[in-house]
Amino acid sequence: MPPMGGDLSRLRQLNALTVIKTLRGAEAATLSALAERTGLSRPSTKEVIDELSAMGWVEEVPPASGTMGRPARRYRFRADGGHLMGLDIGAYHIRAALADLDGGVIAETRRPAHPGAPLEDRLAAIEQAAATCLALGGLTIADLWAVAVGTTGLVGPEGRVIMSASIPAWRDLDLGGLLGEMFPCRVLVENDSRLAALAETRRGVARDARDVVFLHIGRRMGTGLIIDGRLHRGFGAAAGEIVMLPEAGWRDGPVDLNDAAIVPDGLPPEDAAGFTLAAARDGDPTALDAVARFTDKLAVGTAAAVLLLDPEIVVLGGGFSRSADVLLPPLRSRLERVCLRMPKLSASTLGDECVVLGAIDYAIEHLDQLFFAPDAPALRPPVRPATSPPGPDPT
Amino acid sequence: MPPMGGDLSRLRQLNALTVIKTLRGAEAATLSALAERTGLSRPSTKEVIDELSAMGWVEEVPPASGTMGRPARRYRFRADGGHLMGLDIGAYHIRAALADLDGGVIAETRRPAHPGAPLEDRLAAIEQAAATCLALGGLTIADLWAVAVGTTGLVGPEGRVIMSASIPAWRDLDLGGLLGEMFPCRVLVENDSRLAALAETRRGVARDARDVVFLHIGRRMGTGLIIDGRLHRGFGAAAGEIVMLPEAGWRDGPVDLNDAAIVPDGLPPEDAAGFTLAAARDGDPTALDAVARFTDKLAVGTAAAVLLLDPEIVVLGGGFSRSADVLLPPLRSRLERVCLRMPKLSASTLGDECVVLGAIDYAIEHLDQLFFAPDAPALRPPVRPATSPPGPDPT
Repeated sequence: MPPMGGDLSRLRQLNALTVIKTLRGAEAATLSALAERTGLSRPSTKEVIDELSAMGWVEEVPPASGTMGRPARRYRFRADGGHLMGLDIGAYHIRAALADLDGGVIAETRRPAHPGAPLEDRLAAIEQAAATCLALGGLTIADLWAVAVGTTGLVGPEGRVIMSASIPAWRDLDLGGLLGEMFPCRVLVENDSRLAALAETRRGVARDARDVVFLHIGRRMGTGLIIDGRLHRGFGAAAGEIVMLPEAGWRDGPVDLNDAAIVPDGLPPEDAAGFTLAAARDGDPTALDAVARFTDKLAVGTAAAVLLLDPEIVVLGGGFSRSADVLLPPLRSRLERVCLRMPKLSASTLGDECVVLGAIDYAIEHLDQLFFAPDAPALRPPVRPATSPPGPDPT
Repeated sequence: MPPMGGDLSRLRQLNALTVIKTLRGAEAATLSALAERTGLSRPSTKEVIDELSAMGWVEEVPPASGTMGRPARRYRFRADGGHLMGLDIGAYHIRAALADLDGGVIAETRRPAHPGAPLEDRLAAIEQAAATCLALGGLTIADLWAVAVGTTGLVGPEGRVIMSASIPAWRDLDLGGLLGEMFPCRVLVENDSRLAALAETRRGVARDARDVVFLHIGRRMGTGLIIDGRLHRGFGAAAGEIVMLPEAGWRDGPVDLNDAAIVPDGLPPEDAAGFTLAAARDGDPTALDAVARFTDKLAVGTAAAVLLLDPEIVVLGGGFSRSADVLLPPLRSRLERVCLRMPKLSASTLGDECVVLGAIDYAIEHLDQLFFAPDAPALRPPVRPATSPPGPDPT
């Protein structure tokens, strides 16, 4: 057999990624169990585990006390080997969550924001939210391997926000660059609806589905698409913007709910839709009319996505997912009239956390690519970022 | 280095596929050139070429006469090692084309059909078209390695036509099974718009684009999607059916063109749209009005697809692609009003052949999967089907 050089190291990277993905978020496993679950040969599995152990990605677990005889060695992913931060920067809020390499949330925090706030104020609020979150988790900024940010608007491939309808200061803004100055590690920026879609696929109601349409419905309306198991960005990172289709009528958000006649004068505008949804739940006819008009529009954009993509599941997420009991039945009946094949239709259980959790899952995907992809430079060890972080390489 | 067993043979299959894809449709190449183009090491390339040569997939090319010294050996893909047939079964026509393993068309034929013809008549016409095509190419049915069929309607994963709006006999029909009795080789059935989209990506104006929206526009209207370089079928094989969205108004086909006031009484219905398009090209105001109404509708469904998917290119294909000069300018201006990022917008150059060519490309993809995919049983030799065809395994 002639030597295969680069091809073999490529294969080894792939095998390492397979093992990492199998161990992450799971119980400790023996070599035999790992070989079975990964489909790798046992010698390949052993080779990969030895390499990953030497580098600190994986560790042996002590046998359970009271075990008789000599038990098979078991290995687990070192989730606490590094930490990630997810940020959700919306028009009205900033959320931060701190997670380990499994994606488990260690600490989280939320601050209100104002859509018209000047850029400096918003950046300062982001910095404060991040600092609070780190303090809650007992960590420092130097412990972060990556920060992933979900934000409203059209986000270009380099982390530049091209435009945002809801944050005026977010226009042709190098947000990735600005946050890269704030954090001494990799910073990733992506559209918030897309990250929320990712979270649903990784840990929500769409878990393991290959084709998902995520409806990000609340004060604003958007969609995120998972196609063939991957976040779909499109050629110019502008995918998922069905909100712009005039016939769908999504552009002005839930105006039918906001402007319903039953909304009392003086109610803060941001509470109007919630008021109408609650009244509809109680059977108020005016509120139910408003919900019918709103779901008519919601159904047009959703039907377009379902007819084009034929997803396994449509997830109603975002702020209004709390009112899924009111919204899903009329949405379902409208879709059933039009769609050739009706997908599963479910409410998100991640609620307002969907974006920040998706940001964490996105950061994990990025690290997997960085360390284990076939074209990654090498199986780099998870050096402690206090001395030498994987970055800085803000994108 | 411990032995790697199954992993290595998987790697070898992948390498073989890489080499085949590099050689197919290209000039003969030396080992060094192949290694460079595939990114494989030279020893791996040699190993793969030796194996493929032994099996008959690849052959050495004699050095050009008059070459001085000892030239490096050159290898080429044996395109004539096997043959494929593509069939396009529409409501009004049946097309057949015969191709080699490069996808080069050797012979083709076309027969008219009638939408309401009984099933037996349609099957007989298919058999006659195939026989004529084989005779034109100097081959027999036993020379075929695979037959791929594009047809109108919703095609399930097993080659069953679930429904078709334009061929009444095509309803819950095991077309794959029926054609499997006709041909002693693999038979694949897929939606015609999807296959046309594939042809555009493999050999048409969308060549090498990763994300493509194909508009299959003529007497019927449909779309085919290529996402991340692959045909998108959806979870239940129902993707691309934006034609069903009421707001797009595609369902009744080009009624605005068919029913324009300038269409003379007595013109056969199938020629009406063409008459209107020709009159619009000559500047007739009534015809231009009809074109405007038609492109308004065309733009709604196209905008939905562009906003959701952000494709690199939108291809106007199908029968009306001949009138792209009339249709594209109004379509472009309507899309520009709505789309966040305007994709390239081009007319197909494959014309009425798009489906049959896509069927051939689809058959080639299938054979690649069959022989070279990582989970294929082995690098099976291209045995002559006269003695032992790769099938029969109709799906």
